[in-house]
Amino acid sequence: MKNFKSFASDNNSGVHPEILQAMIDANSGHAIAYGNDYYTKSAIEKFKVLLGNNIDVYFVFNGTGANVVGLNTITNTYNSIICAETAHINVDECGAPEKNTGCKIIPVPTNNGKITINLIKQHIKGFGFEHHSQPKIISITQATELGTVYTPDEIKELTSFAHKHNMLVHVDGARICNAAVSLNLDLKNITTDVGIDILSFGGTKNGMMYGEAVIFFNKNLSNNVKYIRKQSMQLTSKMRYISAQFEALLSNNIWLKNAKHANKMAKLLSDKIKDIHRITITQKVETNGIFAIIPEKYIPIIQKEYFFYVWDEDKSEVRWMTSYDTTEQDINNFSAFLHEVIV
Amino acid sequence: MKNFKSFASDNNSGVHPEILQAMIDANSGHAIAYGNDYYTKSAIEKFKVLLGNNIDVYFVFNGTGANVVGLNTITNTYNSIICAETAHINVDECGAPEKNTGCKIIPVPTNNGKITINLIKQHIKGFGFEHHSQPKIISITQATELGTVYTPDEIKELTSFAHKHNMLVHVDGARICNAAVSLNLDLKNITTDVGIDILSFGGTKNGMMYGEAVIFFNKNLSNNVKYIRKQSMQLTSKMRYISAQFEALLSNNIWLKNAKHANKMAKLLSDKIKDIHRITITQKVETNGIFAIIPEKYIPIIQKEYFFYVWDEDKSEVRWMTSYDTTEQDINNFSAFLHEVIV
Amino acid sequence: MKNFKSFASDNNSGVHPEILQAMIDANSGHAIAYGNDYYTKSAIEKFKVLLGNNIDVYFVFNGTGANVVGLNTITNTYNSIICAETAHINVDECGAPEKNTGCKIIPVPTNNGKITINLIKQHIKGFGFEHHSQPKIISITQATELGTVYTPDEIKELTSFAHKHNMLVHVDGARICNAAVSLNLDLKNITTDVGIDILSFGGTKNGMMYGEAVIFFNKNLSNNVKYIRKQSMQLTSKMRYISAQFEALLSNNIWLKNAKHANKMAKLLSDKIKDIHRITITQKVETNGIFAIIPEKYIPIIQKEYFFYVWDEDKSEVRWMTSYDTTEQDINNFSAFLHEVIV
Amino acid sequence: MKNFKSFASDNNSGVHPEILQAMIDANSGHAIAYGNDYYTKSAIEKFKVLLGNNIDVYFVFNGTGANVVGLNTITNTYNSIICAETAHINVDECGAPEKNTGCKIIPVPTNNGKITINLIKQHIKGFGFEHHSQPKIISITQATELGTVYTPDEIKELTSFAHKHNMLVHVDGARICNAAVSLNLDLKNITTDVGIDILSFGGTKNGMMYGEAVIFFNKNLSNNVKYIRKQSMQLTSKMRYISAQFEALLSNNIWLKNAKHANKMAKLLSDKIKDIHRITITQKVETNGIFAIIPEKYIPIIQKEYFFYVWDEDKSEVRWMTSYDTTEQDINNFSAFLHEVIV
Repeated sequence: MKNFKSFASDNNSGVHPEILQAMIDANSGHAIAYGNDYYTKSAIEKFKVLLGNNIDVYFVFNGTGANVVGLNTITNTYNSIICAETAHINVDECGAPEKNTGCKIIPVPTNNGKITINLIKQHIKGFGFEHHSQPKIISITQATELGTVYTPDEIKELTSFAHKHNMLVHVDGARICNAAVSLNLDLKNITTDVGIDILSFGGTKNGMMYGEAVIFFNKNLSNNVKYIRKQSMQLTSKMRYISAQFEALLSNNIWLKNAKHANKMAKLLSDKIKDIHRITITQKVETNGIFAIIPEKYIPIIQKEYFFYVWDEDKSEVRWMTSYDTTEQDINNFSAFLHEVIV
Repeated sequence: MKNFKSFASDNNSGVHPEILQAMIDANSGHAIAYGNDYYTKSAIEKFKVLLGNNIDVYFVFNGTGANVVGLNTITNTYNSIICAETAHINVDECGAPEKNTGCKIIPVPTNNGKITINLIKQHIKGFGFEHHSQPKIISITQATELGTVYTPDEIKELTSFAHKHNMLVHVDGARICNAAVSLNLDLKNITTDVGIDILSFGGTKNGMMYGEAVIFFNKNLSNNVKYIRKQSMQLTSKMRYISAQFEALLSNNIWLKNAKHANKMAKLLSDKIKDIHRITITQKVETNGIFAIIPEKYIPIIQKEYFFYVWDEDKSEVRWMTSYDTTEQDINNFSAFLHEVIV
Repeated sequence: MKNFKSFASDNNSGVHPEILQAMIDANSGHAIAYGNDYYTKSAIEKFKVLLGNNIDVYFVFNGTGANVVGLNTITNTYNSIICAETAHINVDECGAPEKNTGCKIIPVPTNNGKITINLIKQHIKGFGFEHHSQPKIISITQATELGTVYTPDEIKELTSFAHKHNMLVHVDGARICNAAVSLNLDLKNITTDVGIDILSFGGTKNGMMYGEAVIFFNKNLSNNVKYIRKQSMQLTSKMRYISAQFEALLSNNIWLKNAKHANKMAKLLSDKIKDIHRITITQKVETNGIFAIIPEKYIPIIQKEYFFYVWDEDKSEVRWMTSYDTTEQDINNFSAFLHEVIV
Repeated sequence: MKNFKSFASDNNSGVHPEILQAMIDANSGHAIAYGNDYYTKSAIEKFKVLLGNNIDVYFVFNGTGANVVGLNTITNTYNSIICAETAHINVDECGAPEKNTGCKIIPVPTNNGKITINLIKQHIKGFGFEHHSQPKIISITQATELGTVYTPDEIKELTSFAHKHNMLVHVDGARICNAAVSLNLDLKNITTDVGIDILSFGGTKNGMMYGEAVIFFNKNLSNNVKYIRKQSMQLTSKMRYISAQFEALLSNNIWLKNAKHANKMAKLLSDKIKDIHRITITQKVETNGIFAIIPEKYIPIIQKEYFFYVWDEDKSEVRWMTSYDTTEQDINNFSAFLHEVIV
């Protein structure tokens, strides 16, 4: 099986044709390595158009790299990072944040992947007490790992709270475009305008081949990032190929179209299966993921035809992700198959 | 200046057309992320054909990543790693090996980038003495950062010596193909056959876009590598695009043709400029780099037209690198320009 | 105020006279540094008499050092360590375990500081899945940070569970003597006999000046510890002075008498104040600590006379610790004062 | 053999009687843990009397701890630390500096353990170039590991050079008192007055039981040190016992008398053996160590009676250290024995 359609993750999809074309177009002659090239300058300009001029942008290889390079740049080893228990930095990065930053990760249980002041405030303490890791970062994921979305007001509440305590807000935006689309807002409205300090801007899950961006909204925070990126093995020599991808992603609203389509496909699937009463959808379908409890015995039967992950074995909860390249036909087929199997 | 020809580094060049085509061909449908895909299996098979079946292969993003993931997998934090003073792991990775492995790097001065038992033996001591970092790794670069090449016998001497002391030999093979071509040998002859333990196999400097391979020649050493690769932020989700590149590189002898051509261009350049008596070539031109002392005043004049690095400011020594895509015309032009300027 | 009686912690007390005398006696002539001395050999023998011959013992400076050196020796950076949310390694070591081992700490909420299989089993998963930190250690504190004690059966259940999953059990025994005394058991009964793998044996809180021991119950685990102890800055040059303390502590049952007395004083205090109905004792008084909720307004009044810590500001919960040198008179005075203040 | 006289190291000696007495005197009643006690305040005042008021003082357990806590506080992970090849931080700390700070150590060969601008200037480069570890620290040892001493002018030259490059100077002062005595200067003259930034002030090798001080000469550098000390496992709970030792050491000129005596004994030994023509003393005897080449065959014979280290096996060079408690009789006996053996 060389190529197939899966509902496992938006990173099972390929590269969007216009993005791939931009890479092909960039493949001409020599370019100075490590970012001092035409494409990189141009891609950074595109980001400034979208997010405002007062940002600093650094490209890295992957999402874990973006999170770790960003967090490492703005923390000391004795800090703590507070996040939802379900956060990618907590459960899906094999301990990379701890190993690389030295910080303590404080995971907070949530119902929907979203943290609130109420949920975290018990951990905002011990400032100046040398026995405790010093709270420094509130890290949220937008959209969350459960497909839900923070509203601008919800984010603003967290950034105000954080800044009041001399803390910073980090956003893991592996699916930031899906969130913006879901809220029907500009990217700026959920980042620059609501006071976040640093963002991992995701490209790979929205149609790129590889490449993410670490974006600082406060230039005082980024002084050391270039050394940390290099020391973290996240500096690519032929950077033009990441930059060309971002340039394409941010042109012609591809970022928006891709995310919009992925979100729409998830909504379509959830609509089509809501009449299967043995399927319980457990989270609001706000972006491109569906979380559903289904009778355990059906899971292997469905997985024989479609690749996807069991999210929570104990609850028999599965995750189905759509992507920019999921077609209505894919959804129809999958829905029909689910109707057929789950009786 | 969007595209230009430089003699700065073989990583200023673009992607070889057949490799790019392979990436385009891989861009069809979905593929399971993180390496459990058709392309990755196939690329690993290609490596086994070249290097023997008893290897373990893991793809990573870049050269520093390959060195660090490899070294981290086979060391404890209290070990030392002995290498030439000029080694990439010593001077060009911003301390990534120390930060990520915790190990001590022991740099050894050399004349030509190549270490010998004589040069390193004073550091092979203190075994069992807890105050000293415990010697564990001899790391060589093949071809070296100075463009020179270890013969199979030279390597074998080092691997025998290392194994006798329960140490391991790591090869930074960012330009391993250039070395094989220079020696007119198979890749196997300078790796598997001479007892090295682990290799960073370079792709990017030989015509790939990104992607390197960590290759273990002893499967007992690779038990933990998959966790270390992930924790080191070197696991790509859409791995098929690295794999497709390697598959192409290792097909139709592209690895060999590219390296051979790059080496040939360096030789051509050195031949063409040897009559400029104010240029002193300081290292044997065995692969694709030329190291030369030129009068200081000419450097900025030449750099105005051609991008390259000053290797050693104190000595007024420069480095000119050729690449798989350097043309004879490029060499003729550059040589003519040098003749014109340096009088 | 040079000297005073506090209920803040058992580390506010001084050195037991017999232990101090042993240090004075050791202060004669030269001794080989770093542990190759008479006193160290002798102290290790004392440990073997108490815990069995099949142990490996290494002395370190302090409790955080013991925990970190021990955990670092038996983990890889990509492992996870599961412990109670209240564990010293989680909240009182300023992130030293994360920084030094690279591991993820997974904190588990408990009612009484004691973890059970039920509480932790949701975290024992993802074996072989490279995106997750690999579960390796169950770390318990005996006696717990809340003064409670694990029974031998409770420990055995955890060690069996751990070993079934190829995991190991670490015991933070800063107050292991208080636990043994509380259970009226030998130290061996709650360590060697119940299958624990590694123990931080506390000396400082039981009458020593400084010094703790890392004890391995499986000699296969301790191969690298001497390098890790040194690299962790926990190897003392004049080791005889730690060793002489341990020798004294383990002679004439001082370890037992000290712990017994401290426990008894806590019980006495709890008995004497149980009639103050505005004090709610929140944890069983099984060792030498009392946790109590008292009306907030009284706390500063009491703290003006007696030094102690507020344990949980939100709940107005305080912690009162007794020590080997707390006298009945101290308890009587403190109890009388509490009766006077809290009305 | 419980007690004996050795020439192995000044850390084979015991505790000076006045210092031990101070510890005994401090053993009365309770004291707040972790440094907020009478003794600690008093000891810090003593340091200020000697070195000036503009210092910050932090006590730690041992010399490696002092070096690492100090260096870690004033570096970022991507910095480099330049030191003599023979420096304790380079060869005697099992890689603790690399593991704990993440920095690169750049060892510089010297003849006598002392670095100069000329010896290090080739490494002061690459500022702003992200591929290179960024030079930040020049670390010198005073007195050096070879028993030699930097003059105030030599230090001033290094500090001026360092500050001109935005770098800092760290002094490993495990034997700083021996150096001051050798120069016949106050401690202030070779620290505060010559612009050093941070000092590891040694106690253990000059008559203390354990305990060293990290001293910052620029208070802007010490903001984070308390967290780093704790996270580095170098914060002792019963700090009064380190503080009482320092208070005693800095009272009645004990620091001076001890160091003076140790130095004098080394001079005496060197005078007494200079007529043994088969002994070649290889370094100036400026403090309390003698480095000598002797015929290899005599070494085991001498070691049978006296414990000492072979410094360089290849050269058959040994090290003999004297201590504050070495007596003239010890020297006479040892000298007589050497005369008898080496014929």
